[in-house]
This record gives sequence, structure tokens and C-alpha cells, in this order.
Amino acid sequence: MPDAAAIKETVERYVRAVVGDVDGIVALYAEGATAEDPVGTPPHVGLDAIRAFYESSPSALSAELEEVRVAGDTAAFLFRAVVQVGDEKREVSPMDVMTFDENARIVSMRAIWSRDDVRPA
Amino acid sequence: MPDAAAIKETVERYVRAVVGDVDGIVALYAEGATAEDPVGTPPHVGLDAIRAFYESSPSALSAELEEVRVAGDTAAFLFRAVVQVGDEKREVSPMDVMTFDENARIVSMRAIWSRDDVRPA
Repeated sequence: MPDAAAIKETVERYVRAVVGDVDGIVALYAEGATAEDPVGTPPHVGLDAIRAFYESSPSALSAELEEVRVAGDTAAFLFRAVVQVGDEKREVSPMDVMTFDENARIVSMRAIWSRDDVRPA
Repeated sequence: MPDAAAIKETVERYVRAVVGDVDGIVALYAEGATAEDPVGTPPHVGLDAIRAFYESSPSALSAELEEVRVAGDTAAFLFRAVVQVGDEKREVSPMDVMTFDENARIVSMRAIWSRDDVRPA
């Protein structure tokens, strides 16, 4: 079981890396990890698919971790990101749920948000 | 798939019912549902076990829904509850993750919080 401090550190690094650092994001994931963003869409399985997903996603201009909770091998957190979409800046504020391996690498990520959570920034 | 509005309604009713209304809470769960609170402890499986869990938990004096996100059949939400523990009032602010059946009844509940998230109220 990873400790809570190590999990929080991974979450903080994740939110910092969301600002265009795809290598930094992928380094936080474990081999064979899954990412489902948003929940209800087909999960991206394995590091290559996860890398391709982040490379194809709109780049965040800024991102801020607002709340994080850890229990056992699981974290849930709320963050706000400003994203450039064409000529517009939009703010999105998902809640992500992640599970972690014993090295506090991400084994699964599920992002819970919808269009209702996207606003002009 | 339940619709997002129905899921949000269940989440709102859940947070209102946390204030001592065990019947109200149990009515929101589906047959055979699971509740893991906090994550990492053995899940309560089925309505009888779920009822016993809520009956044995400290009663909340007040509870407020702060943030809720819905995607697919899943919701994540942050709420704050003031709980009476002996002579003391304490505030706890978990993030819960729930999945729902097509009638927006709770199929699984996982509460993500630790002692770090409990404060004197």
C-alpha cells in the first residue's frame, strides 16, 4: 500500500504536469494503467494509448488543485484547469478518481465531468 | 443509463438524509449494493449490512453538498458534515464516488477521506 503522502505528491505532480507536460504526465502512470476521461467513454489502456490521449487533448494554460482526499490506495481530487479551445479560453473543473500501485504510480484514472462543468474562462 | 439530473437528485437526497435519516439513506440504495467507507475498509454488502453501517455511524448534525460531478453512471461529490462524537462536534469533508443503476439508485458507494479530513467544528 502506498502511503498517503506519496499519493498526494503524485496528484500534485499530475495537476502541475497537465499544463502541457505530456512526458511528465505519462511518467506518473504505471505500466498497463487505464485512463477513462470522461467516465463513460472507452478507457485508454497502457502507456502508449495514455500518451496518445493526452497528446490529442487540448493543452491546459493553467491548472490548480482545489481539494484532494486519500483513503487506502485511492485518491479523489477536484481541480480547475483553463484550456485553450480554438480562439476561446474555457475553464473545466473535473473530479478525478485514481488508484495507485505501491510506488504511488497511477494504476487507474477516471475523470468525472461533463459539458455542464465547462465555462468560458 | 440513468440521466445526470436523476443522479444529482439522488446525491442531493443522500446528503440531506445523512442527518439522521437512516431509512431515507437505505431507500436510495439498490438491492445488493456495496458501501466502502472509508475506502480500504471491508465493504458493506447488501441493504441489511448497509443499514447496520449507517445505524452504527455517528449521526450528522448538519451536512452540506459542496461540489458534485456526474459522468456516465458515476458521480463524485464533496460534502461537509458536522458530526457529534461524544461531547465534541467535528467536521468531516469526504469525497464520495457512487455508481448508479438505471433508476438512479446507488449500486456502489466509496467514501474517500481520512483522519486528516476531520477537524473540530
